[in-house]
Amino acid sequence: MNYRLTIQYDGTDFHGWQLQSKGERTVQGELTRALSLLDGGAVIVHGAGRTDAGVHAEGQVASVHLRREFEPERLRNAVNGNLKRDVRVISACVAPDDFHARFSARGKTYRYRIFNAPYASPFFARYALHEARALDVDKMREAARLFIGEKDFTAFSSAQAEVETRVRNVWRLTVDEKLSFENSALIPTGARLIEITISADGFLRYMVRSIVGSLLAVARGEMTEDIITRALRKHDRRIVAATAVAKGLTLAEVLY
Amino acid sequence: MNYRLTIQYDGTDFHGWQLQSKGERTVQGELTRALSLLDGGAVIVHGAGRTDAGVHAEGQVASVHLRREFEPERLRNAVNGNLKRDVRVISACVAPDDFHARFSARGKTYRYRIFNAPYASPFFARYALHEARALDVDKMREAARLFIGEKDFTAFSSAQAEVETRVRNVWRLTVDEKLSFENSALIPTGARLIEITISADGFLRYMVRSIVGSLLAVARGEMTEDIITRALRKHDRRIVAATAVAKGLTLAEVLY
Repeated sequence: MNYRLTIQYDGTDFHGWQLQSKGERTVQGELTRALSLLDGGAVIVHGAGRTDAGVHAEGQVASVHLRREFEPERLRNAVNGNLKRDVRVISACVAPDDFHARFSARGKTYRYRIFNAPYASPFFARYALHEARALDVDKMREAARLFIGEKDFTAFSSAQAEVETRVRNVWRLTVDEKLSFENSALIPTGARLIEITISADGFLRYMVRSIVGSLLAVARGEMTEDIITRALRKHDRRIVAATAVAKGLTLAEVLY
Repeated sequence: MNYRLTIQYDGTDFHGWQLQSKGERTVQGELTRALSLLDGGAVIVHGAGRTDAGVHAEGQVASVHLRREFEPERLRNAVNGNLKRDVRVISACVAPDDFHARFSARGKTYRYRIFNAPYASPFFARYALHEARALDVDKMREAARLFIGEKDFTAFSSAQAEVETRVRNVWRLTVDEKLSFENSALIPTGARLIEITISADGFLRYMVRSIVGSLLAVARGEMTEDIITRALRKHDRRIVAATAVAKGLTLAEVLY
């Protein structure tokens, strides 16, 4: 039986999604251990997005074939019973036999959070990049438009990425600012949370963090839009800004 | 010069607010150390609310007399430079000489968070009580009304509290439920965040957590409203429910 799991994790204490031979703690490793135990034998867990160390997930999806048959809610609860509290299966369901978390995905949405205030927030310390200088959000929004469409994202990805093509279709890239959460003081007066949301049919390694790095450079007045245009056209990763830190990034949703 | 500081902290790794002789890590202890260092001599930091171990603060207020004169923003930044990232001064200002964070306060607002879903959230693990069973929020709201007004809260406080009177005036006690955060998957489908907000002219030790414990018991169908009425009237703490865990509680605001 093929199962589809939706998973959340706080990536802070993980060495990313992917199972590692060196015995480092990974999300795929923990899930594989818990599911193999339940199924009475080794299983292979496929994840939709292979998130890097420190990256979080609010809606990661995994697929796994199990020998035994489980009532989905019981499966969810049994797996959760074998996981630490920083990773959690939030739903489980039976999937068509050919469903594969990665290959069946039509796209994904990532979100990047920036806490913009003269001081860092104790509550967003694990979940957002801290930027003390005031950022020009309008400039960020204008620059964001340059990334929309089907483009070669070589300049905004890792040089080591072994992929057939670096063309990806970004259909959404929005920059929102939150000045408060309803009914809470989590964002104090004078602070704001900037959320960058990006949806595409696929992502190259470091692609979101590299795009965010350049949007940040634009917002700080350190880079102009034409650098982005040039980098995209010439596939030149030397002229783009540094990749933004992993902890601000969250895999928000996988689209099927 | 007298200064007023607004402070946020993630209480998870603190033994509460109050300075302890045993050398345990406390918020008052950390602030006293950082401020004494800056002022070149021992200082006394007064906090508005002496939060217990594990309790958070989004808007704690402290007052401190310093020998030296500091430009408030510089004071804030200098103190933050000497603090770990789970505690932060979010604003500093010069206060009238007789301002005292605790004695000048007219009241406080606390918030208690409950993550209500069949699974615990990795993101609220440090900040909310997890309740797997569906809670009856309407029943909670009805029971909440019983606590509003000027009452003797002996039954809903620690037996050890050495205070002159256990009469407090609760002017607000609301129960809100959030089914989502705008633009995020932090609260997945089928989950909700319940926020209990309580404002009063003062609070006895364990008062909020004890009230929340009884509201939870009502919401689970384990306690009826008349137990609350009786406990309030007879000052009988033996019949009320267990105190709710510290990690769900946040000092939201101090009113002057």
